[in-house]
Amino acid sequence: MPLRALALKVSCNPIFIREKVLMASTTTTPNNRVLNATLRQRIMSADEAAALVRNGDHIGMSGFTGSGYPKEFPVALARRMDKAHQAGDPLRVGVFTGASTGPELDGALAAANGVEVRLPYQSDPAVRKRINDGDMEYVDIHLSHVAQYMEYGFLGKLNMAVIEVAAIYEDGRAIPSTSLGNNKSWLECADRIILEVNSWQSMELEGMHDIYYGMAAPPNRDPIPLTRAGQRMGSPYLHIPLDKVVAIIETHSPDRNTAFKEPDRASQQIAGNILEFLEWEVKKGRLPVDLLPLQSGVGNIANAVLFGLEQGKFHNLTAYTEVIQDGMIGLIKSGKMVSASATAFSLGPEMIKEVYGNLANYRKSIVLRGQDISNNPGVIRRLGVISMNGMLEADIYGNVNSTHVMGSKIMNGIGGSGDFARNAYLSIFMAPSNAAKGSISTIVPMVSHVDHTEHDTQILVTEKGLADLRGLSPKQRARLVIEKLAGDDYKPLLQDYFDRALKSGNGMHTPHMLNEAHSFHERYIKTGKMLA
Amino acid sequence: MPLRALALKVSCNPIFIREKVLMASTTTTPNNRVLNATLRQRIMSADEAAALVRNGDHIGMSGFTGSGYPKEFPVALARRMDKAHQAGDPLRVGVFTGASTGPELDGALAAANGVEVRLPYQSDPAVRKRINDGDMEYVDIHLSHVAQYMEYGFLGKLNMAVIEVAAIYEDGRAIPSTSLGNNKSWLECADRIILEVNSWQSMELEGMHDIYYGMAAPPNRDPIPLTRAGQRMGSPYLHIPLDKVVAIIETHSPDRNTAFKEPDRASQQIAGNILEFLEWEVKKGRLPVDLLPLQSGVGNIANAVLFGLEQGKFHNLTAYTEVIQDGMIGLIKSGKMVSASATAFSLGPEMIKEVYGNLANYRKSIVLRGQDISNNPGVIRRLGVISMNGMLEADIYGNVNSTHVMGSKIMNGIGGSGDFARNAYLSIFMAPSNAAKGSISTIVPMVSHVDHTEHDTQILVTEKGLADLRGLSPKQRARLVIEKLAGDDYKPLLQDYFDRALKSGNGMHTPHMLNEAHSFHERYIKTGKMLA
Repeated sequence: MPLRALALKVSCNPIFIREKVLMASTTTTPNNRVLNATLRQRIMSADEAAALVRNGDHIGMSGFTGSGYPKEFPVALARRMDKAHQAGDPLRVGVFTGASTGPELDGALAAANGVEVRLPYQSDPAVRKRINDGDMEYVDIHLSHVAQYMEYGFLGKLNMAVIEVAAIYEDGRAIPSTSLGNNKSWLECADRIILEVNSWQSMELEGMHDIYYGMAAPPNRDPIPLTRAGQRMGSPYLHIPLDKVVAIIETHSPDRNTAFKEPDRASQQIAGNILEFLEWEVKKGRLPVDLLPLQSGVGNIANAVLFGLEQGKFHNLTAYTEVIQDGMIGLIKSGKMVSASATAFSLGPEMIKEVYGNLANYRKSIVLRGQDISNNPGVIRRLGVISMNGMLEADIYGNVNSTHVMGSKIMNGIGGSGDFARNAYLSIFMAPSNAAKGSISTIVPMVSHVDHTEHDTQILVTEKGLADLRGLSPKQRARLVIEKLAGDDYKPLLQDYFDRALKSGNGMHTPHMLNEAHSFHERYIKTGKMLA
Repeated sequence: MPLRALALKVSCNPIFIREKVLMASTTTTPNNRVLNATLRQRIMSADEAAALVRNGDHIGMSGFTGSGYPKEFPVALARRMDKAHQAGDPLRVGVFTGASTGPELDGALAAANGVEVRLPYQSDPAVRKRINDGDMEYVDIHLSHVAQYMEYGFLGKLNMAVIEVAAIYEDGRAIPSTSLGNNKSWLECADRIILEVNSWQSMELEGMHDIYYGMAAPPNRDPIPLTRAGQRMGSPYLHIPLDKVVAIIETHSPDRNTAFKEPDRASQQIAGNILEFLEWEVKKGRLPVDLLPLQSGVGNIANAVLFGLEQGKFHNLTAYTEVIQDGMIGLIKSGKMVSASATAFSLGPEMIKEVYGNLANYRKSIVLRGQDISNNPGVIRRLGVISMNGMLEADIYGNVNSTHVMGSKIMNGIGGSGDFARNAYLSIFMAPSNAAKGSISTIVPMVSHVDHTEHDTQILVTEKGLADLRGLSPKQRARLVIEKLAGDDYKPLLQDYFDRALKSGNGMHTPHMLNEAHSFHERYIKTGKMLA
């Protein structure tokens, strides 16, 4: 594919470096990871770097789950914000990342109430509170949309990029950190760049990444040449526009991901239902014997499925997903998974030791990509991914809510679930049949917010069973969802709603009684439980 | 790209004919369009062919809007059904098509109450009534999903394909008719094939189609090599598996599409708002001066936009869309549109005369593709389509309902609007601010059904104005939607709902009061109008 000039004037200037960059054989010592002389002169403290921020700046930061986010700059910025706010001065910024980050980023800035607008995904309790209290505007975008919306100029100006890397070579090639997210776009689109060079991150990360610099804006976009999950097609380096770098912060700080919890009984049952289903699909000839690339959302149910696969009979597994989780490492170690593609690590403390200490080995089977590629709808559909994502609630007609509690409050955001679910070969949504000790039913007459429509969901699973909704009409779905998925206490209530809706005269395609459709939620808001 | 064998056992056996098929120079006379001797022996009447159907059969038929659907077989089948039903015998079938069809197909079979299950899109009043009365199960699937769901075995067995073509050569190559839809998949997956050879269709259709035979099932799917709207990459012929053909019906019947109505004032204002917006985007450097490939849903607002473009200043336009509408022909004739890709014609009677009479000329700028390509998410995102689709209602937070009236009754189905909206470069939804002489507000507190989520919609337009929701949080969207889009009578009601929801204490991300969220709809169901 020839390099074609960008026909569009966009808000940033993508650098289309397409030559094959050879992996450097240079060995840099942990104490000297900034090999460019000019950049060395820009080394400063996090506080000095934070002083470069202006009120209202939009800042693109690295970070995807607890991996590869800047550790010192956000804390220093939060300190500066606290002082400014105490002095009555305004100092707030927009924070754009890959997805959720660690407490030193989201937690610190939310505590300082220093974030005016946040995108695209978050899971920090302090951030969630700020959003639901109305202190922070939150823009919930499909992860695959973020980079291109920025590049097309739809998200306004990006004043600054703050990116963690493992090291920088003389020529501006940087060894990326443990997540990639939207780093390439932030670097290309930002006016000014701050790099955190984190010597805690292993130099063995070199060669693990595959950064695709071939994604021009329409009308000059070529097909992405990816046909296997583990394939490499880009550069192992982030190419840093050196003239935009205004500060380098040297850090030595660990990634912080949540420890993995042993799957509880419900998670194990859900995983069992899914594994049984996959075996059935193979038996019926609808799935190849080695399955298809797996995607799984973050969380313990997903890990339970992966651990189940480790004990199971499938071989030559692959993953095309967002994050490398604990369960995947087990599959790789056991030889059952041959390659895994993601945009970030999301490992518990023990697995961090295992993997970060043996990167040269794991590099053979793990590829980290930008999230414009890891979540690309065209690639996901082409590869035929089997997607498994959690849900907050589903309604009897198969609509899924992944983001909102009782219609108004945000939980974490849609993340990549929409990118995967709609384009997957098989799309699975899973959750226990009830939450909050039974006071909330996962299955409701009508979800209080729709993230995945009836047109997008195929397989729903609770610990009670599995509902295969493929090719069914709404009424056929409703019968199956109530029968297979609902908790015992809620099943009669749901059946009663459906039966009466059928007789309501409101229309027999998707029979609803709008005055009762959210009665479960209304009761919960009033009484603290959905049960009457 | 090498031909790779299908690793999957699927319910059908795709024929991967990849050699370049040269366009035949043979001239066939209108009266002799079946050039294969064996097939000529299978010529029979529509009634004889309809006798081959068994109760419960799933039949894949051609047809996309009023173009290229079988004209005599469904009418004959309906006759047989009427007789059977009168005799107390069951005879009902599943009908799968490309999208909506003509009265001789959907109308006739619905009148006979002979359709058990219907997919994926319909717009016939008799079909709609059957669905909403509970007589017909309707499965509303994204158009891009249909072919692959069938090929993967997700929709069960396909007993029969009934496909209209213009002619068949000796070697099994067929000149397709005026729509392609899912014809390739139906032919590949069906056990038995019936062809309607329609001599009303021009032989000049030869060479207009581009049928891509390179779409293997995962894990063997290669990138679709399409980078320009007008590009050709496949065969101009449907390759008919001759041994499966059980009947040939010779017909001479016209396509039947709805006549184009002069755009009313609201449509013209909506079109004006959109054109002004596109000019603004070009001015701001967010769109190229020749725009990007246009997609527009069927209907008069879309046509009004296209007529507006004919008067406007944009040149070198292209279309990557589902149907070739009247308005596009004007653009092509005036030289403003250089190429258009679709899966069907959808022209009024006058334009049918113009285009079908000059196909040799229009063939230079029009390509008809299968709907797995015309609606392919990866291709749509790569090309950067500007999508324009109608909506039934939108809520203040930007969720769009395209399919359901008052939550329960189906209108037409989602069609391709989801394929385009989520993957478009710019996604526009449009409708007048009210319907049914003001008794229905297009803008509501919460839509009664979600087809396009808050994560998928960018630009909403009514005759009142345009709301650009890109990069906005839910509350920011609500303010804009109420201000710019709502009708005068409903604006204070919507503002009041939003103001009180902000104070409700239910959460400030997407403030809702679930007990009132559907109050507009509930009032309409009770009183016949949404206004209090």
